[in-house]
Amino acid sequence: MAKLCRENELVRKISQGFRGFGDGSVRIGTGDDAAIWEPRKGHETILTSDWFLEGTHFLREKHPPDSVGWKSLARAVSDVAAMGGRPRCFLLNVTLPSASDGGWLDDFLGGLRRASRALRCSLAGGDTTRQDRILINITVIGEVAAGQAVLRSGARKGHLLFVSGTLGEAELGLRQLRKSKGKVRATNAPLSKHLYPEPRVALGKWLAKNRLVTAMMDISDGLSTDLARLCEASGVGALIEESALPISQGVRRSEALRFALHGGDDYELLFTASPTQANRLRTNYRGLPITCIGKITTPKKLLLAKNDGRQEVLSPRGWDPFRK
Amino acid sequence: MAKLCRENELVRKISQGFRGFGDGSVRIGTGDDAAIWEPRKGHETILTSDWFLEGTHFLREKHPPDSVGWKSLARAVSDVAAMGGRPRCFLLNVTLPSASDGGWLDDFLGGLRRASRALRCSLAGGDTTRQDRILINITVIGEVAAGQAVLRSGARKGHLLFVSGTLGEAELGLRQLRKSKGKVRATNAPLSKHLYPEPRVALGKWLAKNRLVTAMMDISDGLSTDLARLCEASGVGALIEESALPISQGVRRSEALRFALHGGDDYELLFTASPTQANRLRTNYRGLPITCIGKITTPKKLLLAKNDGRQEVLSPRGWDPFRK
Repeated sequence: MAKLCRENELVRKISQGFRGFGDGSVRIGTGDDAAIWEPRKGHETILTSDWFLEGTHFLREKHPPDSVGWKSLARAVSDVAAMGGRPRCFLLNVTLPSASDGGWLDDFLGGLRRASRALRCSLAGGDTTRQDRILINITVIGEVAAGQAVLRSGARKGHLLFVSGTLGEAELGLRQLRKSKGKVRATNAPLSKHLYPEPRVALGKWLAKNRLVTAMMDISDGLSTDLARLCEASGVGALIEESALPISQGVRRSEALRFALHGGDDYELLFTASPTQANRLRTNYRGLPITCIGKITTPKKLLLAKNDGRQEVLSPRGWDPFRK
Repeated sequence: MAKLCRENELVRKISQGFRGFGDGSVRIGTGDDAAIWEPRKGHETILTSDWFLEGTHFLREKHPPDSVGWKSLARAVSDVAAMGGRPRCFLLNVTLPSASDGGWLDDFLGGLRRASRALRCSLAGGDTTRQDRILINITVIGEVAAGQAVLRSGARKGHLLFVSGTLGEAELGLRQLRKSKGKVRATNAPLSKHLYPEPRVALGKWLAKNRLVTAMMDISDGLSTDLARLCEASGVGALIEESALPISQGVRRSEALRFALHGGDDYELLFTASPTQANRLRTNYRGLPITCIGKITTPKKLLLAKNDGRQEVLSPRGWDPFRK
């Protein structure tokens, strides 16, 4: 056989070290025209895609490549967690400048492999090509027991509003990264949360399985923007309490509220529960805090009850690449 | 509700006019965290992704936007056809410069909708963001009856090698487009084949269902490159006959062989059949020619038997974005 072209070699390099996890759901993976996947009986398939682009979502000179690998998969898996499902396999679509073929690619694949193992989500295929920028698009295929998927549209008046974890920490991490020179490492909690977010798969699955929630989504673009989406899908409004917001300790008081409301990249879960369901919720799940931050209302607007007793309208001011 | 941010508006614009096809397989589509999809009983799921990038795969100033829409989906569907499956739904991932939000996007979505209807492949979701270039990645989800998927790896010595349709026409179309000024239209067969390729879904399905083939893939990067991939996956070689190649009539004699061997974007099917299977094959399927172009051999190399009686080694010289 004549010397094979370089695209084939790159596909082999990418495939190495990614193995399925023994459940046999990916029958044919990388190396054929397409992957063949078999969902388990009694389950529905969850499909989601996410861009992760140099210059928009990460900076080649500042983000460690293994964080790019970890985060590109973790972000997409977070959408599966937000439906109450579990991830099963993914398609990796990546474009590479030739300068990134060596060390950058190795470290990127290292981070991606760690995420793949930690999240039990195996590589099934994808597409590679050459560009002068690193562009990543990941499609995650997940599954959820039939009828258990939690949508954004089930919130009703009187339901209580919850978030997992703390809010605003990843935004602080991003600001620390922007101020730093050269590549950063995850030397503290905010940087860790920005570089290596952990999608809340176990919590989402537990909430869905036990039918503890009426609506759910993940907070990726900031609470104010994502809550507006949940309320729009449900045809409701919400009132949230400033005093109730779970703000992480590392954030300065003067910035804490703004980061918690509008900061991106938290990958926490935002969900609603009826009062009966709320009684069955704990204040934490395996150590991860669960906090009631407000309630669903019928006027279709978002309000923030401030610590000083005033109420103000909360506008979506989180991450939106299309905002002028 | 406060004015919703522009990303939401764009998602609505994209979703409009794409409807499922009444089979109910996409239960939750655009508008939630992820799509929910239910494969039919007794079927396996096919997963495939394809890049379609401005500057690499199309030129904004020359390719009509509705061709970009059509072709970005048709290319990905061709991988499903190559497994013997049928497409069911797709995820559209697109980045847009602000200058492309208006007329370009409308025409792009028009072409994509036409392809979606013609190929019976409904929009299930995806991701949008802002970039200064138009970047498209499409994931197609298809299905195939359990055990019927045709892989690249089943070719054995003595099997006969076939292609559908004609070869090299799309390459001629690309050259005509490169020479033209401004946007082109599909005014002849080569331009039509380059701008609006038709994935061979019906043929692939028929071949798989009737177990007429031992290996199959689509020719997207050129016969010489794709045949090398099929042979590598099967651990075999091949001998093809120059005189047998189905060259379309519009191609000049001096260029015909080169275009047929190395031209990209044909989206024809390349497949192998045992002698017994080959006896059951017709010379066309619903008017689409099926041509025997050679046979599978055990020396692991590709040979071309020329019209003058000589044999020469055939090197993969089709499209490879990673070749130096």
